[in-house]
Amino acid sequence: MTHNLLKGKKGIIFGALNDKSIAWKVAEKAVEEGATITLSNTAMAIRMGDFEKLGEQLQAEVIPADATSVEDLETVFRRSMEVLGGPVDFVLHSIGMSPNVRKKRTYDDLDYNMLSKTLDISAISFHKMLQTAKKMDAIAEYGSVLALSYVAAQRTFFGYNDMADAKSLLESIARSFGYIYGREKNVRINTISQSPTPTTAGSGVKGMEHLMDFANKMSPLGNASADECADYCVMMFSDFTRKVTMQNLYHDGGFSSMGMSLRAMNQYSKSLDEYTDENGHIIYG
Amino acid sequence: MTHNLLKGKKGIIFGALNDKSIAWKVAEKAVEEGATITLSNTAMAIRMGDFEKLGEQLQAEVIPADATSVEDLETVFRRSMEVLGGPVDFVLHSIGMSPNVRKKRTYDDLDYNMLSKTLDISAISFHKMLQTAKKMDAIAEYGSVLALSYVAAQRTFFGYNDMADAKSLLESIARSFGYIYGREKNVRINTISQSPTPTTAGSGVKGMEHLMDFANKMSPLGNASADECADYCVMMFSDFTRKVTMQNLYHDGGFSSMGMSLRAMNQYSKSLDEYTDENGHIIYG
Amino acid sequence: MTHNLLKGKKGIIFGALNDKSIAWKVAEKAVEEGATITLSNTAMAIRMGDFEKLGEQLQAEVIPADATSVEDLETVFRRSMEVLGGPVDFVLHSIGMSPNVRKKRTYDDLDYNMLSKTLDISAISFHKMLQTAKKMDAIAEYGSVLALSYVAAQRTFFGYNDMADAKSLLESIARSFGYIYGREKNVRINTISQSPTPTTAGSGVKGMEHLMDFANKMSPLGNASADECADYCVMMFSDFTRKVTMQNLYHDGGFSSMGMSLRAMNQYSKSLDEYTDENGHIIYG
Amino acid sequence: MTHNLLKGKKGIIFGALNDKSIAWKVAEKAVEEGATITLSNTAMAIRMGDFEKLGEQLQAEVIPADATSVEDLETVFRRSMEVLGGPVDFVLHSIGMSPNVRKKRTYDDLDYNMLSKTLDISAISFHKMLQTAKKMDAIAEYGSVLALSYVAAQRTFFGYNDMADAKSLLESIARSFGYIYGREKNVRINTISQSPTPTTAGSGVKGMEHLMDFANKMSPLGNASADECADYCVMMFSDFTRKVTMQNLYHDGGFSSMGMSLRAMNQYSKSLDEYTDENGHIIYG
Repeated sequence: MTHNLLKGKKGIIFGALNDKSIAWKVAEKAVEEGATITLSNTAMAIRMGDFEKLGEQLQAEVIPADATSVEDLETVFRRSMEVLGGPVDFVLHSIGMSPNVRKKRTYDDLDYNMLSKTLDISAISFHKMLQTAKKMDAIAEYGSVLALSYVAAQRTFFGYNDMADAKSLLESIARSFGYIYGREKNVRINTISQSPTPTTAGSGVKGMEHLMDFANKMSPLGNASADECADYCVMMFSDFTRKVTMQNLYHDGGFSSMGMSLRAMNQYSKSLDEYTDENGHIIYG
Repeated sequence: MTHNLLKGKKGIIFGALNDKSIAWKVAEKAVEEGATITLSNTAMAIRMGDFEKLGEQLQAEVIPADATSVEDLETVFRRSMEVLGGPVDFVLHSIGMSPNVRKKRTYDDLDYNMLSKTLDISAISFHKMLQTAKKMDAIAEYGSVLALSYVAAQRTFFGYNDMADAKSLLESIARSFGYIYGREKNVRINTISQSPTPTTAGSGVKGMEHLMDFANKMSPLGNASADECADYCVMMFSDFTRKVTMQNLYHDGGFSSMGMSLRAMNQYSKSLDEYTDENGHIIYG
Repeated sequence: MTHNLLKGKKGIIFGALNDKSIAWKVAEKAVEEGATITLSNTAMAIRMGDFEKLGEQLQAEVIPADATSVEDLETVFRRSMEVLGGPVDFVLHSIGMSPNVRKKRTYDDLDYNMLSKTLDISAISFHKMLQTAKKMDAIAEYGSVLALSYVAAQRTFFGYNDMADAKSLLESIARSFGYIYGREKNVRINTISQSPTPTTAGSGVKGMEHLMDFANKMSPLGNASADECADYCVMMFSDFTRKVTMQNLYHDGGFSSMGMSLRAMNQYSKSLDEYTDENGHIIYG
Repeated sequence: MTHNLLKGKKGIIFGALNDKSIAWKVAEKAVEEGATITLSNTAMAIRMGDFEKLGEQLQAEVIPADATSVEDLETVFRRSMEVLGGPVDFVLHSIGMSPNVRKKRTYDDLDYNMLSKTLDISAISFHKMLQTAKKMDAIAEYGSVLALSYVAAQRTFFGYNDMADAKSLLESIARSFGYIYGREKNVRINTISQSPTPTTAGSGVKGMEHLMDFANKMSPLGNASADECADYCVMMFSDFTRKVTMQNLYHDGGFSSMGMSLRAMNQYSKSLDEYTDENGHIIYG
């Protein structure tokens, strides 16, 4: 059932790859809620992904672009405005990649050219997107921009490597540009800090399944799925959230506010020696 | 235009007083979006407020209750379930009051009986509400509970006095109970940290108008209004936000992420002597 | 080796019980660093604890007081000023107790009289201490006040129960009063958020040993000990930290900034079934 | 009076320029407290600054290095170990510069090559320093590393521009590397978030004096000076803080925990029309 939450709104979705992608789900859900959209990803992703299918299904033009290229971003915004008939109302940035992670360089053995690429692809691309849009006046007044982040921006997860730094930078850019774009055009900019999600991108991270099990057991509502994330994004694009800006919004079943849950501790302590009280009884089970 | 976001949902709104109240706006908006609700406030507030009007307008039964009384809260939940035909899907807690503020006791001259009242009315009432509801199984699976808070829970504002401590306690209760109610019933519990709002309650706080001017000039989107807050609450009650819990969500035009805006600094520095360099030149204008 | 960091300074230590107590270690270390002090705890704690020994060892007068009684607190400050020869330079608040935890009332079945006691003993006592001191002008200009807290104030730990809310309230009081006492007397007020520590008080918390194991494996430096906490407190009492106020300072080996460590995950995943890919290979080891 | 807090310790101070620099004060204070040190800055800074004087005064070798060059950093650590006789116990990173700020490029008109330089100089240099040191085993077990930061990493200050993003990245690197270096060598890594300070570096930031006035009036203890910051750094280098890591420590007179002070509001509201009550009385003065 649609609620027409985005009826008449136009948007651009960056970073959909296949039907596991959060961005893919957001695209589907946005169209379902009445929006018209364009899609963008790198030329290589477009070849590898299922874009033809998604584009047709959503009647959305697919615009290839390297999000680290200002020129390419100009093309995306120009073409989107042509196709959609004016400035867009919402933008999703779902882009992230670390060559250091891919090449299994540990955090104390980073390649600095790769680090530059990690930051450029995963964070600075967001600034380029916003700066390009603002110069072209390509986002309508009261527009809403989201980027996907992860709690590693606040707390260290082993193996997440330089992506943690990239996410911190991404969230900072959301704040810094949120101030400028807010005061001048009432455009709001936020990040969604999402549960670990079994996407193609996420699957490269070391120990992902165990981490997802831990996150799931820590979170009172369990891990948030890609579908649920799409719902939340749609809400943030709708007119029901017009005064929320410069925020990092946790969409994680409660994980970020947990120190230790009973469920996670039960799992953890299974492999510990049981503690018993003075009468030999196990203190808790 | 309605989006039927709360179609078929049942809720209880605590704390509406008159048409300036955020809770009043939430009640109106919730019904507009398809919910059926009950309203509750103290007997005195019901006498002083415009409840007859609101109750009729929204076809909502008004249930008097002192939210610090577990017995009264039981009555509210029992009667609400009768009237609405089952457990509720959402609850709003918009309750706060400080006798110390009213009696102009400064923070270094608190009356401790009054402090207990401040905490009991403004924070512990939220725990009582949740504990009572849980014992009565009065909130449906995947229900959503909100309480209204203020950024004074994180940062000190002169004159906000012991209400700051009450809001910190309130937000902690949301986290603590959010864990329990989430893991057992998938009920989510969050607080909305709202811009200073010209309600009857807020008007008692010292220097409120100047503070509102400052907050407004600091926030890139300006202060959020009661109407906008109601929109946000409705979204948090809807199924679009089912994995958000234990969060304090700033709905403040960006205030919480600002250190200093140009607009606020322009106002601030008007009353400063200009700084000049050794040659008497103004260093910057 | 002493560094004479507190040479000539006077202080009051609330909450030492026996040589496992953090407060006990702080008392010892403060005297070692040149301070003269008084000690205070409840009459019952004084009977149960090793106060005679500690008092003699440190040449410190022991002043019985119920920290929830303003009258008793007046006695402590009055007597301390007499004994020490003037207003004190530092105060440690190491007081916390939850009757609900003791009586094994779960968080969704709190007794509200007990909750009031938890808050009064563990948090409001800190306000009473500060308000009493300020009215009596019992803390010298540039004095330093500390209270011990725990990360449960920010994140939920199962079983920590209403002590989490008490710690949130405690930290809020530190901020609120820090503003007032800072602007008027340059007195700084901070909380130390300490690793779980095997004290007599901590040992009552459910599942403490397993939690300590988890915290220790999560923290890159391991859990901080009571001795190390005493070092940190002494530094915060010294003149090397005169502009730090209204802060919650994590002294926890890094725990608060960790999302997941390799060490903790290795422990956690021992008891998980190995994940295998479609070919039956273990995805990672 | 010295406390011999750093007696026998060896350290490297990056970023001293002249006697206004925080790094300069840290160097002086560290030596006063018993440390032997080396100093490093760029060749150009060494020419422009008062290094001869500082080096002689502190009997410290000055080692020119571009902190963005791994090779240069290797030289600094190698030479420091030679001169000081082994691995160092502490390191200060006080390095930051934004070409965008210098060239008055606003945040919505950044030059991306300059942004790369801002990040490389102000943040990535810290990673290079740590990675280089770790590979060379140039920091002793239980060593302490600090970098200077600013609250703009959390909240947006107009005019602070891409330095805000650099500081966010810097703080993230401290956390990420703090985990690795902590678990392997017990080396702790923290950032100090310092009040705005009238250094040569800070003086380039737009509206600095007015901002400093605001920060000073907001902070109950007033702005922290460079001298006071040096005290705090020495404390963090000493053995009194061995379990503090991965933290961002506010050294700011309380600013970071303030929402609005009476003093700042009095200043702010001077230039507003006075609000009067129904009897024409000014509501507060």
